[in-house]
Amino acid sequence: MKRYNGYLIDLDGTMYRGTECIAEARTFVNELHRRGIPYLFVTNNSSRTPAQVAEKLRSFGVPAEEKHVFTTSQATANYIFEKKPDASVYVIGEEGLQTALADKGFRLAGEDADVVVIGIDRQITYEKFAVACLAVRNGAMFISTNGDIALPTERGLLPGNGALTSVVAVSTQVKPTFIGKPEKIIMEQALKVLGVPKEDVLMIGDYYETDILAGMNAGIDTLLVHTGVTTKEMLARYERMPTYTADSLLEWLDRL
Amino acid sequence: MKRYNGYLIDLDGTMYRGTECIAEARTFVNELHRRGIPYLFVTNNSSRTPAQVAEKLRSFGVPAEEKHVFTTSQATANYIFEKKPDASVYVIGEEGLQTALADKGFRLAGEDADVVVIGIDRQITYEKFAVACLAVRNGAMFISTNGDIALPTERGLLPGNGALTSVVAVSTQVKPTFIGKPEKIIMEQALKVLGVPKEDVLMIGDYYETDILAGMNAGIDTLLVHTGVTTKEMLARYERMPTYTADSLLEWLDRL
Repeated sequence: MKRYNGYLIDLDGTMYRGTECIAEARTFVNELHRRGIPYLFVTNNSSRTPAQVAEKLRSFGVPAEEKHVFTTSQATANYIFEKKPDASVYVIGEEGLQTALADKGFRLAGEDADVVVIGIDRQITYEKFAVACLAVRNGAMFISTNGDIALPTERGLLPGNGALTSVVAVSTQVKPTFIGKPEKIIMEQALKVLGVPKEDVLMIGDYYETDILAGMNAGIDTLLVHTGVTTKEMLARYERMPTYTADSLLEWLDRL
Repeated sequence: MKRYNGYLIDLDGTMYRGTECIAEARTFVNELHRRGIPYLFVTNNSSRTPAQVAEKLRSFGVPAEEKHVFTTSQATANYIFEKKPDASVYVIGEEGLQTALADKGFRLAGEDADVVVIGIDRQITYEKFAVACLAVRNGAMFISTNGDIALPTERGLLPGNGALTSVVAVSTQVKPTFIGKPEKIIMEQALKVLGVPKEDVLMIGDYYETDILAGMNAGIDTLLVHTGVTTKEMLARYERMPTYTADSLLEWLDRL
């Protein structure tokens, strides 16, 4: 039986559900930590900084420092930096995205920006959409942190960043580059941060359409854990199966 | 040569461009008025009331009363009234749409609404999108005043209502019913208001994708006037041609 030397782990639905920790996942990550096996949490949540995410995990008793968290905001900032390190950017998004872009030193601009970046923004306005449309029509590179269509909350499924991004995509008829899961852009960066060859890495998540496809797209093995979105019944409808499945991460303890 | 007994006429790009009147169109409508030929302005603009639109036209010297204006907001309110006269509605939109719905006596509701209606709303918020998504997921009928992807302004092309509507459509994966041009829903209602058999009606507009397709979809003859969006070069790329074309409406005076 194959042993993995590094783990990429999803957060929502895998480590916690909203404000409730998933105890089996906590036990699992504590065991990774105890044995010194590298792990990195990979999240499509662009609204929080890695420090804020790590703090939330620690509040649940999960061993997590800032370095254990890789967000789609960081992946987005890295991606733009690789393409155009001196880019001016127009940003729609919350603290996590704004901080990640500021950390790379990008200048902010309006409809003359080189790059338009859209992440979830619960303070969205028509004017923000308008400037983004004008900039994209002016030829700006068009990037979206992730294509998630819905955001699970206590109230139900609210609009996700993929839905907000569609305003600009539909209006300008320009397709954005999505960075987050299931795209391999975020995964390839996460593998670099983790520092383990991809043959030895396992991607763990609860949602076939993002986590498992992300692993498949990046060519790494996957473990679907049925603690979140994708149930066994839902999984049965897909053609391509994850490498492994589990009811909870307790089942994976003896594979460490 | 066929003579028409009634005219459906687009506004933006046909009667005016932004705040500038198209003089040839003014001359044409004054001649319709002088001869007592029925005409009705048909607009996808959901933000203004018919009274406001008529006032703008009169300020340009175009003979127009409230009864000469038919907006997609009125068509939307009529459509809902036909389907469910006692419906509760959740509305995203501006004064024209809110007034049209209030005139029909619909109750306002939130995520428990029977119908979600979306029109252009330059005071859009995430919370408005959120309630619309929750209502549609709860089974509300999903209606959009029009699918225009862009709104021409002095600043350039800003997001139109079709782009805003896509947030809810993408997030819920439910397709809305669009009411405005090029849909025949608004056209069939406009024909009733005009009160002329459709064989004897000509639809005049500047934009192939909305005005001309609307006429075609409703089975009425069309005149594309090259004073707005669709140039001769653009028109040449379409397979199905309008019944007539003209550089300006002065050319149509001797056809009255």
